[in-house]
Amino acid sequence: MAEPASRSRRDTRARRGRVIEQMDWRQLRNPYHAVRVITDDQLETLHRASLDILETLGIRVALPEARENFRRAGALVDEDTLVVRLGRDIVEHALHSLPGSVTMTPRNAQRAITIGHDMLCFASVLGPPYCSDLEKGRRDGNWTDYCDLLRLAQFFNIIHLVGGSPVEPLDLPVPTRHLDATLAMLTLTDKVPYVFCQSQRRIHDVFAMIAISRGISLEELASTPSTYSIINTNSPLQYDAPMATGVIEMARFGQPILITPFTLAGATTPATLAGAMAMCNAEVLFGVTLSQLTRPGAPVVYGCATAAVDMKTGAPAFAMPEYCKAAQIAGQLARRYGMPLRSSNFCSSNTVDAQAAYEAQGSTWAAIMGGVNLLMHAAGWLEGGLCASFEKFVVDVEILQMMASYLEPTTIDSDTLGLSEMAEVGHGGHFFGTGRTIASFETAFYRPILSNTRNYGSWVEQGSQDAMQRSHEIYKHALREYEQPHLDADTKEALEAFVAWRKSEGGAPLV
Amino acid sequence: MAEPASRSRRDTRARRGRVIEQMDWRQLRNPYHAVRVITDDQLETLHRASLDILETLGIRVALPEARENFRRAGALVDEDTLVVRLGRDIVEHALHSLPGSVTMTPRNAQRAITIGHDMLCFASVLGPPYCSDLEKGRRDGNWTDYCDLLRLAQFFNIIHLVGGSPVEPLDLPVPTRHLDATLAMLTLTDKVPYVFCQSQRRIHDVFAMIAISRGISLEELASTPSTYSIINTNSPLQYDAPMATGVIEMARFGQPILITPFTLAGATTPATLAGAMAMCNAEVLFGVTLSQLTRPGAPVVYGCATAAVDMKTGAPAFAMPEYCKAAQIAGQLARRYGMPLRSSNFCSSNTVDAQAAYEAQGSTWAAIMGGVNLLMHAAGWLEGGLCASFEKFVVDVEILQMMASYLEPTTIDSDTLGLSEMAEVGHGGHFFGTGRTIASFETAFYRPILSNTRNYGSWVEQGSQDAMQRSHEIYKHALREYEQPHLDADTKEALEAFVAWRKSEGGAPLV
Repeated sequence: MAEPASRSRRDTRARRGRVIEQMDWRQLRNPYHAVRVITDDQLETLHRASLDILETLGIRVALPEARENFRRAGALVDEDTLVVRLGRDIVEHALHSLPGSVTMTPRNAQRAITIGHDMLCFASVLGPPYCSDLEKGRRDGNWTDYCDLLRLAQFFNIIHLVGGSPVEPLDLPVPTRHLDATLAMLTLTDKVPYVFCQSQRRIHDVFAMIAISRGISLEELASTPSTYSIINTNSPLQYDAPMATGVIEMARFGQPILITPFTLAGATTPATLAGAMAMCNAEVLFGVTLSQLTRPGAPVVYGCATAAVDMKTGAPAFAMPEYCKAAQIAGQLARRYGMPLRSSNFCSSNTVDAQAAYEAQGSTWAAIMGGVNLLMHAAGWLEGGLCASFEKFVVDVEILQMMASYLEPTTIDSDTLGLSEMAEVGHGGHFFGTGRTIASFETAFYRPILSNTRNYGSWVEQGSQDAMQRSHEIYKHALREYEQPHLDADTKEALEAFVAWRKSEGGAPLV
Repeated sequence: MAEPASRSRRDTRARRGRVIEQMDWRQLRNPYHAVRVITDDQLETLHRASLDILETLGIRVALPEARENFRRAGALVDEDTLVVRLGRDIVEHALHSLPGSVTMTPRNAQRAITIGHDMLCFASVLGPPYCSDLEKGRRDGNWTDYCDLLRLAQFFNIIHLVGGSPVEPLDLPVPTRHLDATLAMLTLTDKVPYVFCQSQRRIHDVFAMIAISRGISLEELASTPSTYSIINTNSPLQYDAPMATGVIEMARFGQPILITPFTLAGATTPATLAGAMAMCNAEVLFGVTLSQLTRPGAPVVYGCATAAVDMKTGAPAFAMPEYCKAAQIAGQLARRYGMPLRSSNFCSSNTVDAQAAYEAQGSTWAAIMGGVNLLMHAAGWLEGGLCASFEKFVVDVEILQMMASYLEPTTIDSDTLGLSEMAEVGHGGHFFGTGRTIASFETAFYRPILSNTRNYGSWVEQGSQDAMQRSHEIYKHALREYEQPHLDADTKEALEAFVAWRKSEGGAPLV
């Protein structure tokens, strides 16, 4: 509405007559209380069940270093089965040192973002092997599309963090792919970058490049978080070596890790929401403990991607009611532990149709109402994560911008109530011409970038373009309007030199 | 999930191998606390502003009988300007006699529905002049489509009430259209019917037919609500004659009236959410007072359709963030007054695309999170209400069914937690073959009717149908599977005789 705050948020470029009038960059806050799907008693029952799982069933951990850390802390470690059983005192102790929020600062300090409390941020899609658009269709992930999707993540101000590889650049050689991918992330964008938890050597390469981009040492990096990563546990009840390595390395370098169990009810957990959440929670708490044993106070984010399988096909059924409830129960658990929360903008659809949109909007609403702090895959995810869609990216940007507008505080005072304006207009009049309407017509309400409110006749005259077709044009415009963010020549040179050196050494293995 | 409650809800017809496996009929409850968009102090500020509007600006009322009712209650009535100014004591007095909920019983008592408290129900689309489907395109409202849309409203169990004319049957003569339309509503469906607030004579005709359908007298009808209606005030600050007549007649016959001001911020109200809500609330309170002056204790539902205009085109921008906040603030006001709440599943899109779906899903989530009791236009609304879409009807049914599933209580106990099942499966196993999964695979999770979770290759093999194409097939299936609900021959004959008699009299005028 006509509050001064929103006025200042208009992108100045919009006023210069550019095509895409988008919101300005800003950190969001969610002022509303989160939904409580289960009672406090049920929450405690879940918590205790998770502790029971950790104590009696335990977690199988492939990494010897991780098992050794647990053993030293007093856990029961079976070196034949590789299973670690954790007493509840060890878990409770770890929970005490967890920070409630974490601020990440990328090379442009203006793009620093806090995760936790009532803060909210959106990250672009991470990890699909395929990508698609209307013009060229569906194709394997490749370097050109990788870079273009990064440009979109940079261009749209509602995207706060780079979600990671927006599509896998499969045409780059594996041993050095992380070097090129990170160089692009640090030059095409100035937002918080992502580090993929693969081998220790690859993680260290990326840390080194991020430190260079910020002009700080690795030691300084460890005290000022600048990047983040995600691990997905190998549910049921397993951490493989790269996952455990990820937890340890991220903690060691003081960078936040998002622990997101791969708990699919009916596949990797019992076919109940209670069972799925108890296991999800146990696996998160296990990673939390490993992190805090490595470095007390290391930032950890509670991740939940729990969904059900489609019992007809065995496929994950993303964005279904089970996911909505899981994301919100995860929020209740995260708040119980004082942890920031990660959930996702999910969809299963194979094209940018009504299904893709109701799934994206539904999972985003569920996540926001559940008090999410970091929404992953917030823009561009299609096909249950197997495809990055350029058109879906734009649809999601509209959904996210609408959500940001919905979360703006409402001003109710004598000015905004406007009783004298009502008296002036009188019974049966209209407000199109009042001073306020004329003064605020650009800023009073949310201005869509994609939604079309024209009547049918006018829409037909304009070519009857549906949202997917309009999204196609908008993403093309965005790529034309995109401007590479400033990076000083010395830093750029240092980054390129690092990449060249590490390439000359042959890069690093994936795992 | 695998709770017994959901098992019983499976439609028995699904088990007989029919194509559409939908949820069983049942009244829904919303177990979650509503979102509070504004503080209690802001709520009181809004309330006081509305009382100020009623006291100082007043409402222009075209109907002499209504003005006379207000005058007798002590209001200041200016017979030159037709403006009624209401002291706050008159309004506060009216609020005391309002019932907190209302149960409506249609001719099939099994389809009775309660509006209020934590109860939730969905009504099909009301009132578009056009309709469309993929096969025949967009066309004028007509009798055939009117009847087919009623059949869909009957067929889908998630639709609790007939929203009214799902499309206007423009090919029927106006004076007798209400007779044919109501006869179809009472024979093609057995759900709660709708009465359109046009002339007093037309309202009485419909009341008479509903009484016949239930086998009761008009006097008995007045003590057991069986139908409902909506009035939209002529904002700013006006009630025309049909609207005031509607409030009076519905109150007189004890049937619930939904009062929904046509408050469009920037057009019929100041270009602020505060101003729009203050005026909306004033106009609702005015109708509430008229209703309670007519018959203390008459059921009234708080209606909100407040939205903003698109400042570029002047068109209403439905389903935007302003609508989401308005629907939720209306919930806070309705609960303050102890009234049931009505809001809507809105969209502006001109086709059943991603925009239509994110608008429908977003406005539905906002309404549900705002504690709505009756969601109008819950299925089928397109083009800002100008078109009833058969495919959109199916998309909405999926959205509503998912919401119903999301609102089901979560069971967390030793059985659903499934720790022994986890022990049995072990680390790294899977749960596809456990006893629980096999026993509950049809009932454990939400089963979509429209959403497709197949992988891309399998989806392409099946013809790459998007959600609109699949919805088309589903609605055609639904019409084939539709069964006309039983109506005994005597009642049917009595209804037809009434229609014939009233037609022989020439019907009744629109206003």
